[in-house]
Amino acid sequence: MPLSLAGVYPPLATPFKANEDIDFDKLHENMLKWNKIPFRGCVIGGSNGEYVGLSSEERVEVVRRVKADMPAGRIIIAGSSCEGTGLTIDMSKKMAAAGADVVLVLPPSYFKSSMTGAAMQKHFLAVADASPVPLVLYNMPANTGLDIPPEVCVECADHPNIIGLKDSGGDITRISSIIQQTKGKTFECLAGSAGFLYPALACGATGGVCAYANFAGAECCEIVNLFNAGKHAECCALNHKHIRANAAVTRKMGVPALKIAMEWCGYYGGPTRAPLLPLSDAQVKELRADMESSGLLAKAKL
Amino acid sequence: MPLSLAGVYPPLATPFKANEDIDFDKLHENMLKWNKIPFRGCVIGGSNGEYVGLSSEERVEVVRRVKADMPAGRIIIAGSSCEGTGLTIDMSKKMAAAGADVVLVLPPSYFKSSMTGAAMQKHFLAVADASPVPLVLYNMPANTGLDIPPEVCVECADHPNIIGLKDSGGDITRISSIIQQTKGKTFECLAGSAGFLYPALACGATGGVCAYANFAGAECCEIVNLFNAGKHAECCALNHKHIRANAAVTRKMGVPALKIAMEWCGYYGGPTRAPLLPLSDAQVKELRADMESSGLLAKAKL
Amino acid sequence: MPLSLAGVYPPLATPFKANEDIDFDKLHENMLKWNKIPFRGCVIGGSNGEYVGLSSEERVEVVRRVKADMPAGRIIIAGSSCEGTGLTIDMSKKMAAAGADVVLVLPPSYFKSSMTGAAMQKHFLAVADASPVPLVLYNMPANTGLDIPPEVCVECADHPNIIGLKDSGGDITRISSIIQQTKGKTFECLAGSAGFLYPALACGATGGVCAYANFAGAECCEIVNLFNAGKHAECCALNHKHIRANAAVTRKMGVPALKIAMEWCGYYGGPTRAPLLPLSDAQVKELRADMESSGLLAKAKL
Amino acid sequence: MPLSLAGVYPPLATPFKANEDIDFDKLHENMLKWNKIPFRGCVIGGSNGEYVGLSSEERVEVVRRVKADMPAGRIIIAGSSCEGTGLTIDMSKKMAAAGADVVLVLPPSYFKSSMTGAAMQKHFLAVADASPVPLVLYNMPANTGLDIPPEVCVECADHPNIIGLKDSGGDITRISSIIQQTKGKTFECLAGSAGFLYPALACGATGGVCAYANFAGAECCEIVNLFNAGKHAECCALNHKHIRANAAVTRKMGVPALKIAMEWCGYYGGPTRAPLLPLSDAQVKELRADMESSGLLAKAKL
Repeated sequence: MPLSLAGVYPPLATPFKANEDIDFDKLHENMLKWNKIPFRGCVIGGSNGEYVGLSSEERVEVVRRVKADMPAGRIIIAGSSCEGTGLTIDMSKKMAAAGADVVLVLPPSYFKSSMTGAAMQKHFLAVADASPVPLVLYNMPANTGLDIPPEVCVECADHPNIIGLKDSGGDITRISSIIQQTKGKTFECLAGSAGFLYPALACGATGGVCAYANFAGAECCEIVNLFNAGKHAECCALNHKHIRANAAVTRKMGVPALKIAMEWCGYYGGPTRAPLLPLSDAQVKELRADMESSGLLAKAKL
Repeated sequence: MPLSLAGVYPPLATPFKANEDIDFDKLHENMLKWNKIPFRGCVIGGSNGEYVGLSSEERVEVVRRVKADMPAGRIIIAGSSCEGTGLTIDMSKKMAAAGADVVLVLPPSYFKSSMTGAAMQKHFLAVADASPVPLVLYNMPANTGLDIPPEVCVECADHPNIIGLKDSGGDITRISSIIQQTKGKTFECLAGSAGFLYPALACGATGGVCAYANFAGAECCEIVNLFNAGKHAECCALNHKHIRANAAVTRKMGVPALKIAMEWCGYYGGPTRAPLLPLSDAQVKELRADMESSGLLAKAKL
Repeated sequence: MPLSLAGVYPPLATPFKANEDIDFDKLHENMLKWNKIPFRGCVIGGSNGEYVGLSSEERVEVVRRVKADMPAGRIIIAGSSCEGTGLTIDMSKKMAAAGADVVLVLPPSYFKSSMTGAAMQKHFLAVADASPVPLVLYNMPANTGLDIPPEVCVECADHPNIIGLKDSGGDITRISSIIQQTKGKTFECLAGSAGFLYPALACGATGGVCAYANFAGAECCEIVNLFNAGKHAECCALNHKHIRANAAVTRKMGVPALKIAMEWCGYYGGPTRAPLLPLSDAQVKELRADMESSGLLAKAKL
Repeated sequence: MPLSLAGVYPPLATPFKANEDIDFDKLHENMLKWNKIPFRGCVIGGSNGEYVGLSSEERVEVVRRVKADMPAGRIIIAGSSCEGTGLTIDMSKKMAAAGADVVLVLPPSYFKSSMTGAAMQKHFLAVADASPVPLVLYNMPANTGLDIPPEVCVECADHPNIIGLKDSGGDITRISSIIQQTKGKTFECLAGSAGFLYPALACGATGGVCAYANFAGAECCEIVNLFNAGKHAECCALNHKHIRANAAVTRKMGVPALKIAMEWCGYYGGPTRAPLLPLSDAQVKELRADMESSGLLAKAKL
């Protein structure tokens, strides 16, 4: 029976100490809190985990630690992306050995003009062939400068070890089209942000990987619950309520803002690793204003 | 009482003769067919109307002719975009005099690096001040290379003569965010393509301007009807059924494909004006394949 | 005998009154000053002429007025670009009738994704076939969002009525490559900015269309003179001396800055037409700082 | 006395066996050939070295091996770029320990929207502070999607351990401007491709890092020699002669083409690592045609 991806996943922020070392104690404390929220699992080593700033060893170690804290029945989706196909295969094996249930793979993006659909497809298929665990495609155009062509997603969906797509681009037509073309295949689409979780569900996605769920997990899960209950007007209202706060910690100010919002909402956020800069005072103020309408700050009794 | 924009609009394709002159007889014949479909009105002089290839006089004349054929209670939204603010004001006045109920205005885009939010906003406000009829903002990043910043839309929404936005970018997070921020104002959002009409409605849009409605108007109106009746699963299914055909005549092959699809579905399509090239034989075949799953070809008894 | 393009051309800024009407008197006064500088001619209706903000009639009228003031032996290159092929042909004929010796034609750029090399080439050839005067291709990626493919330039160079390219992109490899591939043909390349006039000459260009020449024409002509005299080190030094000031009035702050610099240097600049915004006070200060090292302000005895 | 960068560097292609392991024997053989050419040194671990497909250990090992074969007086510039600042510092130290004389550092580019000038500058300065050997900035917009702002280059030039810039963007105005603004500082600019080596020299660059020098090193060095002898017309002619072949192995077809050209010219090329695809037969034919005019194939007696 194939693994079901349906549900919500926070792409875990990696907690650092002031000296930029990973703070595994804080990770453990955060896990205890996340474990109380009805997530389907979590994503480790995604963009919000600042995976590009971690060494290979650190990337694997985070998975190992999270695995130890993970409740039964939940799944770990671990980012195993590297620029090389061979390196990605190696990393996928290590991730699986460390406890990952699924690996999440970006298209290589350094040699942009060479990354044709054919090159991406060959990469994904080679990794899927070699990976001990299933693979989810990861489309993240804002960071890679590339969009995985829909037809590549559709063809990859035929591979027994490729079970889904996390799409962070937010182009709902593209997402709908991929869902339509993979109907009947063992392939699920996950929205890559809370900002379009509801419309993606409405168009056939089965869940979402939401940075916002790092500190507003209950709210993200509630969108899925309302959707499953057919309560569309409530979904739309909830989407509106959180859209500005979500934008602030994703598109607008990114991981440094996400970590501050986590602090405000009772989680350990801590610093980012360089080269990500901390927010300026003006940006912190802006973040605060952006989060006001979400109701999360009041709840957090700040 | 403010004008309501809610509903579906085809952005009329401009019919040309073989020598590229406008074929007003064919326009009239098409109008008789469009008039049988429960549209809210139509858009004239949008991208699909190839407005950039028409002279100023022709742009106005098309409005005049369509007005003569327009049933009572329907509205004409006329594109009055020019690169200069003064030219756009002049054109808006001419469009209103020719029968337009609303003008549709793109941000000037030639001086891309100078088109800051402030410059766009000043342009829109100046046109709105001078235009005898209300203005709808037109966001079309694929053609202009620019996105109207959401905050500009939100600030423009306070102007009594700016009543809405047609957004053709398809970024559903952006659309949702603008809808959320203009709640309570006299400002409506229209989806700029059938490809995201349903999710846009789900997120609070009130209708759509759909190239696809040039030949599949009933289907576009049906999406709105089903949505209004709370039939979300049916909306999703209808969205999926038409998404490939819609993509073919918009993003993928554009106006030349749209005009062929119109011919296949019983409308006059005819040639485009240069520099748009006619489809190659291979593209026509591809278009045919892309339209197969929509069921429109069978219906058209081709 | 073919027309030689070799030399320097200012792309004339269009002078406006405070009410944004064209100020033909000021144009005449500026012409008297430009006529004292050893230009090869001038460009009318280019980007710096704000041609997109002028009506069709105004575009032609400016050519007519400049023609009346033009010394014998100098040539007028008039921008006749429109989005449609037919419109561009009409405008080219009007420009020729008004006194243009050459027309300058951009690729249509509104339907970006349809503007393949084949579509551009067909457009240019059709205009060249119909134009009473020779055509120069105009590559301006910053404004059009498109680059004319080098192979299109090379194939167009075979048309007897296409005699050159003005390239404003500044990609010197591309420019060199086009020059190399058109060697032996009646086809000249002009640098589209003073910022790369010298290296373009070094790579085989025969001149330049330089916004900077609106107020620093002697300096631009001096670069060509020094180059022709084989004085490369001096060319390099002159390039360095003016590169910052040139950048300020082109890439960085555009036409509004150009017009202020013209004022500082003894020409009429005046306002731009909306939607171009006037410079803020801070930008004026920055412009002043950017121009300091050029020595032009001292010369102007400000 | 500061290290002089002036001269030509091939950015060494990394030779792989059929199984994609690094072929150190072939690297040694290639080195013996490169050592006969009057290079200033070489770049290891640049884009053409496919550094992104190598493990951290492999990246360092290549430097160690090349060092062993390097003639006295030549310098090794080693790419030490990683996405994280800390990782880049570690890698820089390892590179220095392995024999690098200089490290070459790209701006981190994964978090594109966060990579402001300030973030880049902080990154470069932190690496420069910690690196045991001098640092050269590496601007490679085609691969990173980012341009290092000129003002960041200029400010970095004041750091005693930042001694230059390799600019692969090819925007000659930008390069000239940086050279002008760093005059008098211990800071040199190197052209990042043979395609604009000559115009860059003419504008004040002191050398170049040229993929083309992997198989046409003598020709690249000859451009510098001719330039130094004041023979500009000959430089221009040599630039033209090689511009098409150079474009083929860089912008147009990249590293897979470079490695085939190396084979044709007597070096070991071998396969690329996945995900780079081998050239198709049609592309190989095209490469052959593109190289014809360079005269290199005849010389190689193919």
